[in-house]
Amino acid sequence: MKSYKIPEATIARLSVYSRFLSQVEVQGLELISSGEIAEGSGVSPAHVRKDLAYFGEFGTRGVGYNVKELHKHILKILGLDEKWKVVLVGVGHLGAALAMYRGFRDRKFDMVALFDVDPNKVGKVYEGIAVSPFEQLEKVIKENNVDIGIITTPASEAQKVTDIFVQAGVKAILNFAPCVLTVPYHIELRNVDLAVNLEVLTFNIASKQKK
Amino acid sequence: MKSYKIPEATIARLSVYSRFLSQVEVQGLELISSGEIAEGSGVSPAHVRKDLAYFGEFGTRGVGYNVKELHKHILKILGLDEKWKVVLVGVGHLGAALAMYRGFRDRKFDMVALFDVDPNKVGKVYEGIAVSPFEQLEKVIKENNVDIGIITTPASEAQKVTDIFVQAGVKAILNFAPCVLTVPYHIELRNVDLAVNLEVLTFNIASKQKK
Repeated sequence: MKSYKIPEATIARLSVYSRFLSQVEVQGLELISSGEIAEGSGVSPAHVRKDLAYFGEFGTRGVGYNVKELHKHILKILGLDEKWKVVLVGVGHLGAALAMYRGFRDRKFDMVALFDVDPNKVGKVYEGIAVSPFEQLEKVIKENNVDIGIITTPASEAQKVTDIFVQAGVKAILNFAPCVLTVPYHIELRNVDLAVNLEVLTFNIASKQKK
Repeated sequence: MKSYKIPEATIARLSVYSRFLSQVEVQGLELISSGEIAEGSGVSPAHVRKDLAYFGEFGTRGVGYNVKELHKHILKILGLDEKWKVVLVGVGHLGAALAMYRGFRDRKFDMVALFDVDPNKVGKVYEGIAVSPFEQLEKVIKENNVDIGIITTPASEAQKVTDIFVQAGVKAILNFAPCVLTVPYHIELRNVDLAVNLEVLTFNIASKQKK
């Protein structure tokens, strides 16, 4: 699989398509056109065609794509044909939102544990998972072979959490704290900056106004 | 300005660079290299050079970029040389996290009001803003000329909120609800799917494992 040539924007859209495909698969639809995928996932038809072109021929001209096959193939590309164990550190509003986020649970993400330093938060239950004391983080990751760590702590704590994640053996880190983290080369790190989304919008509005 | 040719990934990174540049500007640094911008914002040097190349010559070879000028220019490109009025509907965990998110306030985003249908949430205060009853949404948007609406409601309510946003005259909508929304052509819509971030990570891990 020549996955390394695929742009990240395509990967992100595949993730969106696959959520739509799982809906239509449940509804029992067998064939789907790229136009229907575009409409159902809120992406332009040109993008859908371009993205699916990366993965060879999964459709038949004039007939459409086989929903089940296409969906299965996209899930495999995204690495979602296996289960991923996840822990989250920092159960503030954002951490709690992610802990309860159905989008994670509907996929192959298994939220193993939640952690916080605040004794008032320890023991609180989110979707059946009680918040554990921060001191247990390394032990829990090692014992459960956790793959991915999510950071929703304040920026001041994020590197410390990162170092424990790395030490304990996670493969990837998703960081929501507004700071730049240092990780060894073999760790996948993704920083999510929520303000970026608003700024892509203002760029688009400003561009229109300047036309 | 040939802004329409700029890829969205570049826009998103400009947003990240600008946050780093605002830090170094406060520290009083006058010149900066693309390598330093890369390191400080956690982006590869190749990406930084490519992104900044879209905006002509803001640097001097061997000397670097003038921090203040570059920062001002990027903010202008992002439309952040003007103030944007924002409202948010749906003050659950995610809504509360966004209402309190410092990243919005540090930029030019003015959170005008928060709304919820739940009477138990109405009146609760987040960063100085009390939650208003949902019924007042249209009136508040019109009276304050709100530019951007953020949706953090359940998916079942998102289209209803969208219709009120459009009716009341917002220019753009940032949707965190997991559903596809229908908006008129002139409205900028951006859907944020938090699970996408985890799936870009699993794609990257899976790609490595298959190498």
